Amino acid sequence: FFPEMAASLWKNLLQTTKERILQQRRASLYIGAHGYEEELIKKKLQQFAGGSINLSKEDNGIGILTLNNPKLMNAFTGTMMLELQERVTELENWKDGKGLIIYGAGNTFCSGSDLNAVKAISNSQDGMNMCMFMQNTLTRLMRLPLISVALVQGKAVGGGAELTTACDFRLMTPGSEIRFVHKHMGLVPGWGGAARLVRIVGSGAALRLLSGAARVDPERALRFGLSEETLSSSDETGALEEARTWLSQYTEGPASVIQAMKKVVTAGRELPVEAALRTEKDIFGTVWGGPANLQALVRRPKHK
Amino acid sequence: FFPEMAASLWKNLLQTTKERILQQRRASLYIGAHGYEEELIKKKLQQFAGGSINLSKEDNGIGILTLNNPKLMNAFTGTMMLELQERVTELENWKDGKGLIIYGAGNTFCSGSDLNAVKAISNSQDGMNMCMFMQNTLTRLMRLPLISVALVQGKAVGGGAELTTACDFRLMTPGSEIRFVHKHMGLVPGWGGAARLVRIVGSGAALRLLSGAARVDPERALRFGLSEETLSSSDETGALEEARTWLSQYTEGPASVIQAMKKVVTAGRELPVEAALRTEKDIFGTVWGGPANLQALVRRPKHK
Amino acid sequence: FFPEMAASLWKNLLQTTKERILQQRRASLYIGAHGYEEELIKKKLQQFAGGSINLSKEDNGIGILTLNNPKLMNAFTGTMMLELQERVTELENWKDGKGLIIYGAGNTFCSGSDLNAVKAISNSQDGMNMCMFMQNTLTRLMRLPLISVALVQGKAVGGGAELTTACDFRLMTPGSEIRFVHKHMGLVPGWGGAARLVRIVGSGAALRLLSGAARVDPERALRFGLSEETLSSSDETGALEEARTWLSQYTEGPASVIQAMKKVVTAGRELPVEAALRTEKDIFGTVWGGPANLQALVRRPKHK
Repeated sequence: FFPEMAASLWKNLLQTTKERILQQRRASLYIGAHGYEEELIKKKLQQFAGGSINLSKEDNGIGILTLNNPKLMNAFTGTMMLELQERVTELENWKDGKGLIIYGAGNTFCSGSDLNAVKAISNSQDGMNMCMFMQNTLTRLMRLPLISVALVQGKAVGGGAELTTACDFRLMTPGSEIRFVHKHMGLVPGWGGAARLVRIVGSGAALRLLSGAARVDPERALRFGLSEETLSSSDETGALEEARTWLSQYTEGPASVIQAMKKVVTAGRELPVEAALRTEKDIFGTVWGGPANLQALVRRPKHK
Repeated sequence: FFPEMAASLWKNLLQTTKERILQQRRASLYIGAHGYEEELIKKKLQQFAGGSINLSKEDNGIGILTLNNPKLMNAFTGTMMLELQERVTELENWKDGKGLIIYGAGNTFCSGSDLNAVKAISNSQDGMNMCMFMQNTLTRLMRLPLISVALVQGKAVGGGAELTTACDFRLMTPGSEIRFVHKHMGLVPGWGGAARLVRIVGSGAALRLLSGAARVDPERALRFGLSEETLSSSDETGALEEARTWLSQYTEGPASVIQAMKKVVTAGRELPVEAALRTEKDIFGTVWGGPANLQALVRRPKHK
Repeated sequence: FFPEMAASLWKNLLQTTKERILQQRRASLYIGAHGYEEELIKKKLQQFAGGSINLSKEDNGIGILTLNNPKLMNAFTGTMMLELQERVTELENWKDGKGLIIYGAGNTFCSGSDLNAVKAISNSQDGMNMCMFMQNTLTRLMRLPLISVALVQGKAVGGGAELTTACDFRLMTPGSEIRFVHKHMGLVPGWGGAARLVRIVGSGAALRLLSGAARVDPERALRFGLSEETLSSSDETGALEEARTWLSQYTEGPASVIQAMKKVVTAGRELPVEAALRTEKDIFGTVWGGPANLQALVRRPKHK
């Protein structure tokens, strides 16, 4: 049809691959950094078993990630930290993926770290390594080319509250709460929750939420811009269905385009303006003249 | 009167010149970049003629820029892209300028690119060059030392929606809409619209507006912070008059001071905090002890 | 109890010291910069005496800083600029400090610079040096590891409005106003007010507030996100008490933890995301396994 476009398709494919490699390298915070020993911390985390992180990839391109350790309010054991990393890798390689919903089993989101693991790594070196391991995973989660939602039922506390900030959006069910409880544990966020919260709600609101350590209910979360919407269902099935419907407004369309959209926004969020512009141009190049663009031009021959 | 100030006036003049040169160099995104051939893309754009971009510079220091291609809802032909660049150059050199209103002829804003041009440059290399050409022009538009308003009547769609984000403010008439329709064309923004939208409404709202591709009416635009105000007039004359009045609150005063004000805000928006502080100090130096400052000191001898 | 923690305590102590040194070096904007002669401008400022900056450090870890030059609406004389720097140094070294309230004597905040000093340094070189001196002090104030509040009674005008932006929060009493009056003086902010205002309210709102030079009353300040809350008292005693109570929600807890909380937010606000994450990890390391964390683990042996 447009003969030049066929050639450009191959070029786009190559660009996408190159870009993906670059993105993965960039995503690997701390890899190779002085003092960070990933294999060592992985061995240690392996010793604290329990619970699981489950991923279901639905046909509509929406992934459902379940935090599953309900007897500890889905607190992260060592093996759950390892499994989260594996699931994120799986999502990075999901070429048909468009969206992601993270929720917790048993009608509650997540209460942070399992204290047994915490005590065992309470020395400084292990603590730092755990911190870097989780920051690395959550940074990769934040940068996934998928539109991601934390579905908050019950409580998202401490590290659980930090996890919600690695998603693009938060939806809360009635009666649920997000609470950056770190101060009461003599701590500050260490999984990147502060760096990300500042970017979501601004530095003033972030300082209030962190240093106040107060419960944030759905209404207050809306007001602070921490949540997008309060759902009407409180039960898991209803809430998940509502979250799927909310997310589908944004994931309708070809995976290549949805992923590109998330990437231009990620670039806009993370990079200085000129670098963001250059990246936007490069990502535009991966869809310009691509199959979805060609079809649209045929269908609607008016304007860009 | 203050003898030391006379000398400083000359110094300020020199500083302003140096700063202007620096700013123009900085504004030239992609100039000299590997793979960007500006002369080549200009020749190509020249082949797709139609419409015009008109600039009227009013005595009060407000410029009126008209997108004029009403039979295509003011879609950008190739020659309009070239003319936009020329008008921006003219505005960069307008020493008495303080404000700018951009609007579209025929009661509608702009529908993006003219598809005839798009098809002709649908190959990857031309597409990238067009993209860099428009990003360059819109970045220079965004950095003009003028307070700029996109007056949105009718529709601002696709590239037209992107163009509104290169202005400091957006004012909308009743019934108008801004729509980042790119997803439905199998595209993402490529004129810098994503990078700028993130800075205007935040990354969460930007992701919703871009990946939802929904019509944004004046009320929703206000709520998202995409628009400053909904005007009451729907007709061109009335809307332009309202926009002039709105803008005049911010442009009253000497051009040197209004331009300096826009520059300190641009620095604050684009630069890391320490660089923004240094730039603010430099720009402060261009007005400190300048004529407007001297007059004010005489008039109102109390405090800074 | 947790034997590995004892060792980590010493390590944390060393890290804290190292970090403090780094922070102080980083805070010294312009020190050693070409053209900035701090000792020279200090000598000049010394010649313009009057008023004082008083600091009272309360037992609860809240400092009260008073701008005290009521006959000139607390305008900054030269010696007040010098004293502000000394007080900030004192606050940087206050190891038990957690919060700071800045207010003006005589029921008004601050009207900027004393014009006698301004006239005397109206030549370009002195003006630039004063500007750098104040930017340096206010940047150090902004980065204090204390949660800071500007309590605005009466008027915060010009440099006084700029000073409020160096605090984390602004609380306003009924009838008070913040006004970036610079335009009417033929000036732009030079104490860093523009760079900081953009970060507090966004660049669009900042451009409106600065180029409009309008009075911002408590209600409008709330709407713009410039103020957190309108207090109910108008008198000094009542307003101070309300501000103390408001602040205490955020300063309750050990100083080491509150200071660390402010530091992670400062990093999130000032640094690109990857650098902010690394800094957050380093600051997390100063409290992880520290005394407050140990006590909390004993008290509440469930989750992070």
